[in-house]
Amino acid sequence: MQLYFTYKIESDFAFLDEEEYIHVVKTLRKKQGDRLELMDGKGFYYGAEITEIGKKEVKLRILSSREIPLNWDFDLQLAVAPTKNIDRTEWMLEKCVEIGINSFSPILCRHSERKQIRTDRLEKIALAAAKQSQKSVLPKISELTDFGKFVRESKADQKFIAHCQSTELAELKNAFVYSPGTSVLVLIGPEGDFSPDEVALAISHGFKAVSLGKSRLRTETAGLVACHTLQLGVAGIR
Amino acid sequence: MQLYFTYKIESDFAFLDEEEYIHVVKTLRKKQGDRLELMDGKGFYYGAEITEIGKKEVKLRILSSREIPLNWDFDLQLAVAPTKNIDRTEWMLEKCVEIGINSFSPILCRHSERKQIRTDRLEKIALAAAKQSQKSVLPKISELTDFGKFVRESKADQKFIAHCQSTELAELKNAFVYSPGTSVLVLIGPEGDFSPDEVALAISHGFKAVSLGKSRLRTETAGLVACHTLQLGVAGIR
Repeated sequence: MQLYFTYKIESDFAFLDEEEYIHVVKTLRKKQGDRLELMDGKGFYYGAEITEIGKKEVKLRILSSREIPLNWDFDLQLAVAPTKNIDRTEWMLEKCVEIGINSFSPILCRHSERKQIRTDRLEKIALAAAKQSQKSVLPKISELTDFGKFVRESKADQKFIAHCQSTELAELKNAFVYSPGTSVLVLIGPEGDFSPDEVALAISHGFKAVSLGKSRLRTETAGLVACHTLQLGVAGIR
Repeated sequence: MQLYFTYKIESDFAFLDEEEYIHVVKTLRKKQGDRLELMDGKGFYYGAEITEIGKKEVKLRILSSREIPLNWDFDLQLAVAPTKNIDRTEWMLEKCVEIGINSFSPILCRHSERKQIRTDRLEKIALAAAKQSQKSVLPKISELTDFGKFVRESKADQKFIAHCQSTELAELKNAFVYSPGTSVLVLIGPEGDFSPDEVALAISHGFKAVSLGKSRLRTETAGLVACHTLQLGVAGIR
């Protein structure tokens, strides 16, 4: 099933933006009367019929709608220092959306080699991955935020900072306690890891320091492993 | 700790091949008497001192050796139909080596879009990932093998085929039973999934059909998720 993203719904009509317009009208040569399956990224799919093809927009009449729940019933938040090679971060985001996350926050750390990131690109990658893997709700992508500010302002029932400065840490898979509706946040550091000050700051704000196992993982692998560990914890392993 | 790969050991001497030679001699400008940390990809690390720099080879005297066990004590075999876009398969292999696998077998399936793969490239990726993540044993990389032949000849205590043709399947995380020394093999299909005939053939050869959860995953994500699911199963979640 091919899904198209509708960015705007007004009463019984849905609209596709310029990017979807190019795909639907220019590439697929869809015409008035053709039917498409739409997603709004907020939990709904729609059956809809093209009523009007504008110069840069497609207007469709909504014929049916259904609410599609996510596969998991808790709030999975990931915050990661973007990698020097941006492909690695983009690839991780794609995989995390496939596996399942609710939000992705790039964070700027003491040892970050990358000091900026294009949020619009991340949003496009998340949208493509959500369509491909049929996730009904788009993850929230934040702007790059300073580590200290992020840690002070973050809210979650269970907060973890994964780092490599000790071999004595509890493992995330044992530290996370799944319950329906719980919210969980994991912080993943840059190539040079978090600084000791950053770890201390996070702990002082209620984060628990964890490891992701015995293997030395790259930043993007750590993000992926954290995401999958939490998802696996949900459904009956315990 | 930077590790260098020694492809040959003769009595007290270790040798680096041309690729490591370029890195060590041309890039890092190491000289006779300099010390390096070597890995043989078979479970041993060596402390060694450069005794001779040839035209394309470096010879080192071994000063010390230590056996480094892997982080896990079972045999994790993954067989995957390579993706049309080879980058995706290469990424997956890199990540699986970081997380931990013992062997990686590309398989040629009915719906495979990619009919060939360069094993030497996969070996280089596996070596780089093993060095980076400090895995002492290199995973065995097989040549691309026809699905039928692979299934008939494969040997493992627990054999699984992950597919998407039913929603009634057991999940791998519940089907896999960890015990020290067990061997486990998971088959992952191509973009168009395994054919029903392939699934039937595998089942007739003792494979158990499983799912990897409710999310629709790309081939490379499925490979990663299978690998990580098995690794997580090992150490105390149950």
